[in-house]
Amino acid sequence: MRTTHDVFHLAIPAHDLDAAQDFYVTRLGCKLARRYHDRITLDFFGDQVVCHLTDGQVATPESLYPRHFGVTFRVAADFDALHACAVTRKIPFYQEVALRFAGLVEEHRTFVLVDPAANLIEFNHNNDPRKI
Amino acid sequence: MRTTHDVFHLAIPAHDLDAAQDFYVTRLGCKLARRYHDRITLDFFGDQVVCHLTDGQVATPESLYPRHFGVTFRVAADFDALHACAVTRKIPFYQEVALRFAGLVEEHRTFVLVDPAANLIEFNHNNDPRKI
Amino acid sequence: MRTTHDVFHLAIPAHDLDAAQDFYVTRLGCKLARRYHDRITLDFFGDQVVCHLTDGQVATPESLYPRHFGVTFRVAADFDALHACAVTRKIPFYQEVALRFAGLVEEHRTFVLVDPAANLIEFNHNNDPRKI
Amino acid sequence: MRTTHDVFHLAIPAHDLDAAQDFYVTRLGCKLARRYHDRITLDFFGDQVVCHLTDGQVATPESLYPRHFGVTFRVAADFDALHACAVTRKIPFYQEVALRFAGLVEEHRTFVLVDPAANLIEFNHNNDPRKI
Amino acid sequence: MRTTHDVFHLAIPAHDLDAAQDFYVTRLGCKLARRYHDRITLDFFGDQVVCHLTDGQVATPESLYPRHFGVTFRVAADFDALHACAVTRKIPFYQEVALRFAGLVEEHRTFVLVDPAANLIEFNHNNDPRKI
Amino acid sequence: MRTTHDVFHLAIPAHDLDAAQDFYVTRLGCKLARRYHDRITLDFFGDQVVCHLTDGQVATPESLYPRHFGVTFRVAADFDALHACAVTRKIPFYQEVALRFAGLVEEHRTFVLVDPAANLIEFNHNNDPRKI
Amino acid sequence: MRTTHDVFHLAIPAHDLDAAQDFYVTRLGCKLARRYHDRITLDFFGDQVVCHLTDGQVATPESLYPRHFGVTFRVAADFDALHACAVTRKIPFYQEVALRFAGLVEEHRTFVLVDPAANLIEFNHNNDPRKI
Amino acid sequence: MRTTHDVFHLAIPAHDLDAAQDFYVTRLGCKLARRYHDRITLDFFGDQVVCHLTDGQVATPESLYPRHFGVTFRVAADFDALHACAVTRKIPFYQEVALRFAGLVEEHRTFVLVDPAANLIEFNHNNDPRKI
Repeated sequence: MRTTHDVFHLAIPAHDLDAAQDFYVTRLGCKLARRYHDRITLDFFGDQVVCHLTDGQVATPESLYPRHFGVTFRVAADFDALHACAVTRKIPFYQEVALRFAGLVEEHRTFVLVDPAANLIEFNHNNDPRKI
Repeated sequence: MRTTHDVFHLAIPAHDLDAAQDFYVTRLGCKLARRYHDRITLDFFGDQVVCHLTDGQVATPESLYPRHFGVTFRVAADFDALHACAVTRKIPFYQEVALRFAGLVEEHRTFVLVDPAANLIEFNHNNDPRKI
Repeated sequence: MRTTHDVFHLAIPAHDLDAAQDFYVTRLGCKLARRYHDRITLDFFGDQVVCHLTDGQVATPESLYPRHFGVTFRVAADFDALHACAVTRKIPFYQEVALRFAGLVEEHRTFVLVDPAANLIEFNHNNDPRKI
Repeated sequence: MRTTHDVFHLAIPAHDLDAAQDFYVTRLGCKLARRYHDRITLDFFGDQVVCHLTDGQVATPESLYPRHFGVTFRVAADFDALHACAVTRKIPFYQEVALRFAGLVEEHRTFVLVDPAANLIEFNHNNDPRKI
Repeated sequence: MRTTHDVFHLAIPAHDLDAAQDFYVTRLGCKLARRYHDRITLDFFGDQVVCHLTDGQVATPESLYPRHFGVTFRVAADFDALHACAVTRKIPFYQEVALRFAGLVEEHRTFVLVDPAANLIEFNHNNDPRKI
Repeated sequence: MRTTHDVFHLAIPAHDLDAAQDFYVTRLGCKLARRYHDRITLDFFGDQVVCHLTDGQVATPESLYPRHFGVTFRVAADFDALHACAVTRKIPFYQEVALRFAGLVEEHRTFVLVDPAANLIEFNHNNDPRKI
Repeated sequence: MRTTHDVFHLAIPAHDLDAAQDFYVTRLGCKLARRYHDRITLDFFGDQVVCHLTDGQVATPESLYPRHFGVTFRVAADFDALHACAVTRKIPFYQEVALRFAGLVEEHRTFVLVDPAANLIEFNHNNDPRKI
Repeated sequence: MRTTHDVFHLAIPAHDLDAAQDFYVTRLGCKLARRYHDRITLDFFGDQVVCHLTDGQVATPESLYPRHFGVTFRVAADFDALHACAVTRKIPFYQEVALRFAGLVEEHRTFVLVDPAANLIEFNHNNDPRKI
């Protein structure tokens, strides 16, 4: 059981910290917790995402599987507001809004953004809170 | 702002779903939310981790950076209880408990576990809640 | 006073753990906390239900009284979502949705499911939160 | 996911409603929500237990399995206070305080009370909150 | 600052404990916490009201001032549900629903019930939460 | 069920609003919500107490029963801090700290203050949260 | 991380404590926590604002920048209720309701009040909670 | 009543945004929410502080009154941790830790930091939560 005082954290690669900060802070609206020469620490929707400066070229993401991360919203308005923000600020989509598993219990809406290091970020909304 | 009704999710690779379930559910004590032929969905300390069945051999993890995930506990007893659980159940450590940044504001204790697909899972505790 | 950190638990009989897991986890959407040779532990809507492997044949349930368990939802949408899930996934009903005590303060909607060991599970919704 | 607004309920048999009320309200300290001619509704540590008047004689409980219910406390002081209450008020024990699974992750303390209809009520405390 | 763990309590006179229990528990839906020979303790909308057996005859209440107690609801539906309950169960009104201070910031709806010992109980709803 | 958004309120008599404000705001540390010519509204430990200007002389309080009000603290330090405040600021005691029902489940500490209109205010602390 | 138990406080100048109390308590509806000869302490929407008696004449506020304070509401109804209160009670506006950054992610509604010492108080509402 | 979803905000002057960001983010550990050419928005202990770029020279602060802002902590450990952070990171103090109103109800510990634009920031801890 993780209490609300504990924080999940995820470390991901970045090839350019300025680009990462522009993507997550200026466009996606995350808060910048700290910046060091080799990483930036973000408050990503209440959890912690750390972008570590990593050598190598940006790969083109080939598939949502097996690696991606994101947030499943309980309230549709939050999902819609984030989507509107992404459109308004021209954040690159890997996949536009789609309805998945229509008619099944698992039915949900989803869209996927892609950050400058080709990390895929998926946002969902499901009308049935039990599916979260 | 992620509310407590929203859920962070992370998708990671697994090369053997039985081994993943044994590691996360039987040993680490996560709850199994669902199991399909190609993935298992876990309640990982309140957030959602999905292990996707992926081809390929298990690589030996070379470095904690740039990819790992985990939980930063606010209460030392929770960190200690999880560490005791890992020792008692012989969960493989990638790195035993260590004190990092001793004497600085960032000082914290940390240990790192490794799952059957070589994903690294880091648990921290920091006396100063502002560093979370 | 039970705080939100405490957990209510209920132990019930099961005559086949695979059938119990299929019913509670795969169909009803509960999380599997642990499985031993003689029992499975479920996260049943936030509380703990343990199915203990028990000899004997499955009896046909004769009456909702004196034994059953379940959840009273505060929000109608949660009641409706669970009912839709039960219909979609063909979970067996002991009693379809009915309105009880119509016109009285105690008025509420209810439906009853039956698990593979003939345990009855009742779900309610009452517009007046004081009746919960 | 059961929110704190939803309520778990459990229906159990009683052969004498006065005896049930004396046991649960006067001695165990539960609140009486309602009393009808054929049942009493209790606020049992935040959830709802309903005792339904049932014909038949009180059976001697033979085993804690497969049927019992109870509460797992997160805080040791709550477990100790309830135990002290049971001793002071001479509530009958089915099983005095015992330590189970000593040395394992599942280690916990437990005691079991027996109500006038031979229903068994188990209270636990586990130092590791993840085992709840 | 009273935290949610603390409880406000109010002691009031009663001239007949059976009548008080019938009024508060059976009709108004409060829970009975304890009953002694000289008092009953009620869970009155989350706070504690104690009716102490007192000699003397029931006086007719002359005015809402200076003594009464009650609850100000934040959500209109809770106010309406309680009012409907009072009508359905024929709880005696001292004053039916009225709108007070119409057009001013202090505008609110109110009704007043009277218990068997002539204690007045006022329930309010105000659209502006800042006026609570 | 009163939610944390609802507010309990209690109306009591006062024979001198300046004296009431001095007692409750300046000495006891309650917040003054509003003052009219005929009443003052106080934030009394999170609930609302209204002192209504009332004719007549101050009676000497004869007994804690049947009328008094107050707060039962869950945490001993809050009880002690309020008691220290009352001593330091020379708030008149009707009854100094006493231990009641020693050795029983109902054991608790209590002290009683008296306001300028002879209303009695009781503060308690009980080690067993179930007795609240 | 400020928990809900911590309190933000802000000290501002006042040239007349009676005028400040009339503005903040009688008209804006804040609670008066304490009054000394040289300052008043207010519960300003859950945080603490202290008005310190300061020599000098009231300056006419020239600009919202760089100094002002206020509250950003999450729920539109709270913003509307406060605005209606200000209109009804004839609280002086420095700036009436305006829509800012229309069509952008930062779009929000805002109005600005001015207190007797020319301190500017801004209230906002933003449909996108992530912009708070 | 400000709910936990609403946010208090305070606008203050800054004469150099890089210096402000270094002070608040790198040293004091606040999160950077957004940076524009003329201001930075900070998550200051859960509330919002905006530093607006302002002409003029930095004045030497002459007095804590009438203008300053800060946080009153409920838990002593949070106060101590922040003080240790300020010392370790050589944040300039306007006033070292002092005990004020010793022996009175208002007794509390306090220290005051000064930011690059000479804004004073006061942190307090008071053993009696009612004084917050």
